[in-house]
Amino acid sequence: MNLLIKGIDVVPSADAPVLRGADIGIAGDRILFVRQDAGGGSGGEAPPPRDFRPDRVLDGSGRLAIPGLVNAHCHAAMTLLRGYADDLELETWLYEKIFPAEARMSDEDIYWGTTLGVAEMLRGGVTCFNDMYLKMENVASAIRDAGIRAAVSIGPLLTEKRGDALVDTEGCKAFFKRWGGAAEGRLRVNMEIHSVFLYQPETLIAGARLAKELGAAIHIHLLETATERRNMLEQRGKSSVFLAAGYGLLDVPVIAAHCVHADDDEIALLREKHVSVAHNPSSNLKLASGVAPITKMLKSGVNVCLGTDGAASNNTLDLFREMRLAALLHKGISGEPTAVTAAEAFRMATRNGAEALGFSETGGIEPGKKADLAILSLDKPHLTPIYDHLSALVYAARASDVETVIVDGKVLMENGALTTIDEEKAKYMVARYAQKNMN
Amino acid sequence: MNLLIKGIDVVPSADAPVLRGADIGIAGDRILFVRQDAGGGSGGEAPPPRDFRPDRVLDGSGRLAIPGLVNAHCHAAMTLLRGYADDLELETWLYEKIFPAEARMSDEDIYWGTTLGVAEMLRGGVTCFNDMYLKMENVASAIRDAGIRAAVSIGPLLTEKRGDALVDTEGCKAFFKRWGGAAEGRLRVNMEIHSVFLYQPETLIAGARLAKELGAAIHIHLLETATERRNMLEQRGKSSVFLAAGYGLLDVPVIAAHCVHADDDEIALLREKHVSVAHNPSSNLKLASGVAPITKMLKSGVNVCLGTDGAASNNTLDLFREMRLAALLHKGISGEPTAVTAAEAFRMATRNGAEALGFSETGGIEPGKKADLAILSLDKPHLTPIYDHLSALVYAARASDVETVIVDGKVLMENGALTTIDEEKAKYMVARYAQKNMN
Repeated sequence: MNLLIKGIDVVPSADAPVLRGADIGIAGDRILFVRQDAGGGSGGEAPPPRDFRPDRVLDGSGRLAIPGLVNAHCHAAMTLLRGYADDLELETWLYEKIFPAEARMSDEDIYWGTTLGVAEMLRGGVTCFNDMYLKMENVASAIRDAGIRAAVSIGPLLTEKRGDALVDTEGCKAFFKRWGGAAEGRLRVNMEIHSVFLYQPETLIAGARLAKELGAAIHIHLLETATERRNMLEQRGKSSVFLAAGYGLLDVPVIAAHCVHADDDEIALLREKHVSVAHNPSSNLKLASGVAPITKMLKSGVNVCLGTDGAASNNTLDLFREMRLAALLHKGISGEPTAVTAAEAFRMATRNGAEALGFSETGGIEPGKKADLAILSLDKPHLTPIYDHLSALVYAARASDVETVIVDGKVLMENGALTTIDEEKAKYMVARYAQKNMN
Repeated sequence: MNLLIKGIDVVPSADAPVLRGADIGIAGDRILFVRQDAGGGSGGEAPPPRDFRPDRVLDGSGRLAIPGLVNAHCHAAMTLLRGYADDLELETWLYEKIFPAEARMSDEDIYWGTTLGVAEMLRGGVTCFNDMYLKMENVASAIRDAGIRAAVSIGPLLTEKRGDALVDTEGCKAFFKRWGGAAEGRLRVNMEIHSVFLYQPETLIAGARLAKELGAAIHIHLLETATERRNMLEQRGKSSVFLAAGYGLLDVPVIAAHCVHADDDEIALLREKHVSVAHNPSSNLKLASGVAPITKMLKSGVNVCLGTDGAASNNTLDLFREMRLAALLHKGISGEPTAVTAAEAFRMATRNGAEALGFSETGGIEPGKKADLAILSLDKPHLTPIYDHLSALVYAARASDVETVIVDGKVLMENGALTTIDEEKAKYMVARYAQKNMN
């Protein structure tokens, strides 16, 4: 299927100039051309390929195309617990509310919770995400069915010894075989190492070995809380980042969520090991974990991307909010109004996330890239006037400004209507699960 | 005109239980009744008054009614400068960008800039705001024409001596006479005392005397930056709060914007003088001013309300964002996940703001109150499920979830369409002004 988007403003990436009234040609799953002055005007650019015949043409006037946003750390099915437990102490939240509620989740709940999360993300211009949760078969199935792009994390580490099996090597390999590269390549499989503090060193070392053997990236929670930092220093003599390096966990590509309490030496090590840090500002604030040293990380050259975390601690999956919050928060905390510019926040939410997740063929609107993009309406009071498109995107735009979303060349939302997801059923099924927690 | 909203969920205030499937009766500009079980069901409540005949009936099913939000500190016409200057040092921002651009604003620009701001606020459920800016005749006219409720601040203090006139007493009195209580009582007039640092003590003392004479509230910027605090201590030996008290500025009702750098003694004085603090978390972060000690203020019993500040430093007029940010930020900063609960944030954005602005007949959905309310659609993925309505409102809802807005008993937005504002013209006129800055 060939698609032509006509006469649209385009932010190709955080680093390329805005194109006005351009045409975007999509052939199959890839962007074939992006050109200004399609009418042969002053731009002097080459006409589109003669053999390009669009099957569909979308009108882009008054609209803006941006690369699809990448949610680099998420537990999509936690939409099931959106608003279930707020304003509580962390221990109460986790042990009295979240864990018991998760024990009540069926395969079907996870499938529909994930589906609702994907619906919400698509509506907010997210075309790719990085998920870690329970019963991952159901998560992967929901992603396959919805048509979005994602990395799913399978967790082979067992918290209790079952015989001598600390690591479920076979289960993990089977999941990799079944889902790695599935759904026309839209699915990647990462290895979940939930965290350093949850496992004994020998288990983590075995996990690192398995990741290396499978060529898998690792998705881990790292230094989320001051308690984790303190406990690891007391119990193992080092903080989680140095421990992770010692166990071999940083010898493969790593997406480390949070890193709220990383000091300068740890930031240097994250940089040296090419670890991607998934920053989740809403969740870190809401759970009172603190504020990650993102300004320092960016200066050090760490690849920082953005995540929402789960809806139990956000309470949405809205990357526009995370971009804006990241850009505001680090100015206020550092006292530097130039910290985390609009371009930096947008880069974190697009290219940096795509690179972190191993989807480097996405993250920008450029010929040859996969066609993952979102189209926003600009005709709104809160987006008027526009002096600068990146400023409008980061400081003013909302998820609800997204009208149309394309993933892998397929239109998954058109003018606000989802094309692949039964949204009414997803809302119904999630509300039905919520009844279990309320009764 | 009598209005009946049928079968709607209602959050009457931050402190009252949610009503489900209730009816709201509005007679003229006031709420006549709010009752559950309109069908004479199990609630056992009295039926609506026999003589109540609605002229219009709105269907409330699947929707939620909330008190209209109150934006307690705003420069609405700064929509003209939305996105004009971001990610800059404060001095550069103010002196090289904002001040020269303001010098290019005509009466017409201010009128349409304010109108666009009001359109944006109505779309986001704001029914009342507190404005301070230039050429206030135009601001007041725009408010009158739009039908929203507002306090406008007239600034009688002159920064330069013109003869012996430090205070424009006559101009100020004339504005009060013309606009105080105008537009069916929707308009109040405050006195703008821009800040303590901008004027000499004798001017401020004269301003305080005039405010007392007129019975006016004072709208002031107080302790926004560390620089202000340091300068006043160095130059006048006290910080701005104690100086303001000494000049007599705190002897009338005061709405003090920001108070980012208030220490414990100053918080105690703000409490003692019944000063209302307008917290503007987005703007304080974006301009790198810091984080106001809101948790302490709330504990001390200070009346804290919420504001957006102007669109040049926000970059929107979206009080849903400010509620969420206030609830998240102070948890993350204080390390206490119970700081600024959803109910506290919602109270700040409703009742506390209404009280601060002298509109105590608004701020709740209760019989006898003025009919200022917003109706949201709940049928959205990001609002599913709902375990708790206040959580959904503060942590998950967006301005774009607002469908219908009523101010003073009049429907100013219905199903997303504004009824009093020529929104296309407002967008056009603001975009036209922006051309002046871009050329």
